[in-house]
Amino acid sequence: MDLHAGRAGARTQMALASLQLIRSRRVGAVTYHRLLAEHGSAGAALAALPDIARAAGLTDYHPCPVEVARHEMSQARLAGATLLIHGQAGYPVALSDLPDAPPVLWAKGDLSLLTRPMVAMVGARNASSLGLRMARRLAEGLGAAGQVVVSGLARGIDAEAHRAAMETGTIAVMAGGLDVPYPDEHAGLAAEIAAHGCLVSEHPMGLQPQTRHFPQRNRIISGLSRAVVVVEAATRSGSLITARNALDQGREVMAVPGHPFDARAAGCNQLLRDGAILVRGPQDVLEALGIEAVPSPQTAPEPEAPALPAQQPAPRPLRETAGIHSLILARLGPSPLAEDQLLRDLALPPATLSPALITLELEGRIQRQAGGLLSRLD
Amino acid sequence: MDLHAGRAGARTQMALASLQLIRSRRVGAVTYHRLLAEHGSAGAALAALPDIARAAGLTDYHPCPVEVARHEMSQARLAGATLLIHGQAGYPVALSDLPDAPPVLWAKGDLSLLTRPMVAMVGARNASSLGLRMARRLAEGLGAAGQVVVSGLARGIDAEAHRAAMETGTIAVMAGGLDVPYPDEHAGLAAEIAAHGCLVSEHPMGLQPQTRHFPQRNRIISGLSRAVVVVEAATRSGSLITARNALDQGREVMAVPGHPFDARAAGCNQLLRDGAILVRGPQDVLEALGIEAVPSPQTAPEPEAPALPAQQPAPRPLRETAGIHSLILARLGPSPLAEDQLLRDLALPPATLSPALITLELEGRIQRQAGGLLSRLD
Repeated sequence: MDLHAGRAGARTQMALASLQLIRSRRVGAVTYHRLLAEHGSAGAALAALPDIARAAGLTDYHPCPVEVARHEMSQARLAGATLLIHGQAGYPVALSDLPDAPPVLWAKGDLSLLTRPMVAMVGARNASSLGLRMARRLAEGLGAAGQVVVSGLARGIDAEAHRAAMETGTIAVMAGGLDVPYPDEHAGLAAEIAAHGCLVSEHPMGLQPQTRHFPQRNRIISGLSRAVVVVEAATRSGSLITARNALDQGREVMAVPGHPFDARAAGCNQLLRDGAILVRGPQDVLEALGIEAVPSPQTAPEPEAPALPAQQPAPRPLRETAGIHSLILARLGPSPLAEDQLLRDLALPPATLSPALITLELEGRIQRQAGGLLSRLD
Repeated sequence: MDLHAGRAGARTQMALASLQLIRSRRVGAVTYHRLLAEHGSAGAALAALPDIARAAGLTDYHPCPVEVARHEMSQARLAGATLLIHGQAGYPVALSDLPDAPPVLWAKGDLSLLTRPMVAMVGARNASSLGLRMARRLAEGLGAAGQVVVSGLARGIDAEAHRAAMETGTIAVMAGGLDVPYPDEHAGLAAEIAAHGCLVSEHPMGLQPQTRHFPQRNRIISGLSRAVVVVEAATRSGSLITARNALDQGREVMAVPGHPFDARAAGCNQLLRDGAILVRGPQDVLEALGIEAVPSPQTAPEPEAPALPAQQPAPRPLRETAGIHSLILARLGPSPLAEDQLLRDLALPPATLSPALITLELEGRIQRQAGGLLSRLD
């Protein structure tokens, strides 16, 4: 056995021990991390497990046998999946910080996507056509700006987001095994993502997803991402749970508003009332994340909602603008004052004063006279 | 001349002086208030005006002649209007605090409405049918809760709000004279408001409204009101200017969201991004103002967006809920803990803990066992 084979053998041993530990009864992600912290390695934790169980009063406790872990690994290899272990190279950085980070992840496809910045998009399965259009526009715009779009392969918003980001990068986090797409009808979409994007799951091949797996899966969707954008969601929907967990995880939560008479917007409007960032298009997401948008045909504003030209400064928040207007109006009276003098009096940069004066003039609240003189109309 | 006639005569003199002063050239609302503060009364200010003008270098300055004020008063009497003078009984209290409060107001109709709490509703003239339905629902709900609905008699949202609040109380603030309804086609609506509600204007009868009068009028709409609700508004619309001025005046600004693809919601969504309160129905407005809603058929929730029953506590803000969930999850592990113990450990009221546990259970993040034991699933 040469050194290389020895190293590979040690890696396999460690991987098997990690799998055995997390697949052992009563060991969840949080317990796994605590055991590893206490015992230094998965192997040592595994060896200590029977004693720990006995001390806790559990009789007849057996850790997961190595054969089970070997089987999981060989099945995954047959399916072309790669094992990513928490704390090892290749494991997604953002996810690894969570207290309940999945100890192991199976990934299939373009693994480099997991090293890029990601934004999650979630929303209703029974999305409206407006919701689907918005999902497409957001995914295209985020993709064009270099963001990988993460979602859950569900019907509606999820599927639309994956499809729109297929060329620029998308990750589907599955609730069951990588070879068990849910819903069935998305088997083709899952195959396409495996070919162009990346599929991810914390479960062994063949696992049929059950109800409880979906919220667990959702913590990975948000955990991978800097932000979760809720595109369309009713009240009491899974997307709202994902949004709440995302806050727990310190992620940005963003939501697309809708008319209050549209029940499919009720969840998003609730999130907005509770402080989520309002999203009208990809630019709002990128701005909130401090990312420069890459102009592209897809992200060009639709004619019905023209954006300001790029060279114009970003609009100021309402309260700030109102404050500037108050300052100006308080300074001006019916007797004309020179604009230069106003600038000195207020100690404001010309770039701030000038648009405010134009607005006030258009509103008919001030009047410009010859010689750069300003007066207040009231 | 008896004492009563003497008093009435003094009141008329004061009213004439107030009218003369505000109708004098170069005297706007702010100047009027400054002159009154400096000279003690409208009559004294009026007497000082020629000297002030001379000192300011104005030659050939003449204050408004008393005949003009007399004419304004007699025309208004013929039209059945009442003069309200700033600082005198009957003048609306909220409005009187503004630095540019109208020195005089002509009012026609039920003057008692001006002493009740008011909420302004503004929005697009070319409103959508959704926008009109929302205006109706808000005005009915606000009216049922005792709020007087203030608006500007314009087409679209304004007219719908006035009509829906006709029985409970509505005030139209006009941009021109009380006898010059704008638009023409709302002459009938104006007559109906004069009969059931109240018409208000700061201008003399017969004044044809010009462009500059509308923003001036809007300051009265928001100035009368505790809050301004923008129902539907495009970007760069007059409603947004009203909303900004309302902030200047220290009023609450609220907006109804809409889908970003709907250009008629763009102004409202912009306001929401800038910090306006999101409004889904009358309940949200009343809650923000700290007012108990009066249940009525009109304010009953529509089936598509069911509200929580009244006896249920108000939903907690998302971040707060997320914080409680984190506390609970941090406290729980795979080993069962008694709920009583958890309650003591967290020092939370049962009314707070209990719904949080139910949510976490439904999300599959914790498990209840026999004997009130809880454990974390992860």
